[in-house]
Amino acid sequence: MNIHEKRLKDLQRLLKNEKLDAMVLSRPLEQDFLTGFRMDGYVLLVSRTEAWAFMPKMLLDHFRSKVDFVNASSPDSLLEAVVSKVKDAGLKKTVFEPETETYLRGRFWLEKGFSEFRGLTAGLRSMKEGEEISILRKSCHIAARAFRIIKPRIKTGRTELSVSRELEDLMQAMGAKGPSFNLIVGFGPDSALPHHETSARPLGKNEAVLLDFGCVYDGYCSDITRTYFHGRPDAEFKKVYSIVEAAQKAGVKKVGAGAAASDVDKACRDHIADAGFGQYFIHGTGHGVGLEIHEAPTLNTKSKETLRAGMAVTVEPGIYLYGKFGVRIEDSVLVKKNGCEILTK
Amino acid sequence: MNIHEKRLKDLQRLLKNEKLDAMVLSRPLEQDFLTGFRMDGYVLLVSRTEAWAFMPKMLLDHFRSKVDFVNASSPDSLLEAVVSKVKDAGLKKTVFEPETETYLRGRFWLEKGFSEFRGLTAGLRSMKEGEEISILRKSCHIAARAFRIIKPRIKTGRTELSVSRELEDLMQAMGAKGPSFNLIVGFGPDSALPHHETSARPLGKNEAVLLDFGCVYDGYCSDITRTYFHGRPDAEFKKVYSIVEAAQKAGVKKVGAGAAASDVDKACRDHIADAGFGQYFIHGTGHGVGLEIHEAPTLNTKSKETLRAGMAVTVEPGIYLYGKFGVRIEDSVLVKKNGCEILTK
Repeated sequence: MNIHEKRLKDLQRLLKNEKLDAMVLSRPLEQDFLTGFRMDGYVLLVSRTEAWAFMPKMLLDHFRSKVDFVNASSPDSLLEAVVSKVKDAGLKKTVFEPETETYLRGRFWLEKGFSEFRGLTAGLRSMKEGEEISILRKSCHIAARAFRIIKPRIKTGRTELSVSRELEDLMQAMGAKGPSFNLIVGFGPDSALPHHETSARPLGKNEAVLLDFGCVYDGYCSDITRTYFHGRPDAEFKKVYSIVEAAQKAGVKKVGAGAAASDVDKACRDHIADAGFGQYFIHGTGHGVGLEIHEAPTLNTKSKETLRAGMAVTVEPGIYLYGKFGVRIEDSVLVKKNGCEILTK
Repeated sequence: MNIHEKRLKDLQRLLKNEKLDAMVLSRPLEQDFLTGFRMDGYVLLVSRTEAWAFMPKMLLDHFRSKVDFVNASSPDSLLEAVVSKVKDAGLKKTVFEPETETYLRGRFWLEKGFSEFRGLTAGLRSMKEGEEISILRKSCHIAARAFRIIKPRIKTGRTELSVSRELEDLMQAMGAKGPSFNLIVGFGPDSALPHHETSARPLGKNEAVLLDFGCVYDGYCSDITRTYFHGRPDAEFKKVYSIVEAAQKAGVKKVGAGAAASDVDKACRDHIADAGFGQYFIHGTGHGVGLEIHEAPTLNTKSKETLRAGMAVTVEPGIYLYGKFGVRIEDSVLVKKNGCEILTK
């Protein structure tokens, strides 16, 4: 039984536990997680004991060549085929996940009598296991190594975009499929924009350099941020950097099975606030990372989740002085029974 | 007035024509089209005379530095702020576009009394104008040139993935930001899967090579497919290739202002069917291309759209012999008053 078949069975067990008869899934991400087949335009229906995939003709041979534990067919109307199957198989309580559906699709399911049920696949996805962990670790190692290689190559005059491209190239050469998001390379005042769009700006003498990047390796996303000063840092940069560094360490120290996600945020936030920069830490502390660059759980002031062994999350506090510079330090870490493993090293 | 401000005014004019008071938009694509600011997590509200953007604190400075024709603010709850503004400004008929919303967001708007209205921004986006056209042309030229460069470098033993990566590198070196989708490189039987996932398969002697690729240049996507035979083609490949080639030419010949999109599909489909391969052409003929790799209009048997000057579409018939090889030939073309301009050349 491969990992996808195992996950499908995990979902079927959850359906039974929750007294649901079936779930319909139409987003490629969850479909890929459960079947290993990722392609726009098909619909997956999972009951407690079976699974069906309805797809356009052009995907059918391809699907069958990759997945042998799901019944695949190519009906005229995919959506109506789901409705018929639900009826014919007597699946009374069929649900969809509201957080993964488009508006039009979800509205259609509602009209057909299906109901909303949240979080089952997100819960399965948040707990990494087996080969997933080694793949994620490798994805993070690639990113961390790319930073060590590129740092000495970032010289005065190089543009943000050229650095971003070289990071992508370096990670691809190490086996990554591509970047895990639009990489952020910010020089000088650009580093103060948490979601800066990497530009053709050249690096000046004596400027902050912020690199927020990661790759997709065998489907899994890594996420890392490093900030440093190119040239001679002034006292203000040094001070801000050391505050963020200590805040990030305090956050990482909080991570472990049983810890509240909000406590990790609090550890970072309190440290920055105590140092007098609370108003400049303008985002949450972290997020889960895996098949998506942002997934469950979230780590911010409002988080209700408890961390569990097997979750992978980022810890990434920052201080942003608009018009001057910003400092963010981020690691992806794996939650362990006791403490955590820093993956981006 | 920059192009974004002009588009916002175009949308405001449409709102007036359709007797709507306002539209709420939450997808980055449409927001970027209308403001020039593309970032997850903000909400745009456009009335007939004004526009407001509600966003997290961390985006506010960044937004204001780029967009001066939209009122930006950072309320505690973005969604509730939209609702309050709609109420305070007396915007009675406020709509959202069902085809661009997530299920949860759309459901929220419905609950607040907003209603569905389709196709306004898709209509604006489908008609390319001014600098958009030269950007799109450049995006397509980069892709076409990359093919000419890479073709002689595709030798026996090279893997699909290495070719895909080199295509990306070549296009980036010509100014592209990145690939416009997961590039498809298929060797031998892999070419018979219309949505093949590029793999580590090496090229054998005497095999079909199919490259379906494109880039994003200054935000605009190009899309091109080329198929050829590496080595000595047999009679079957030669026959299938010449059928697809003639079908594609027949389709391109149909493109022009006033033509029915379905007639372009019909021209390709009839040619392939007449040659006895109708059952192996298992997808539609084309789609609009622009900010998205797939956008309005669609060109298939069921299309209702009429082509208009300024639209950019693909024409991409194919024949797929599962287990053997596939041939697809695709160009992106710009619809003109008379005929069209082939962009991917």
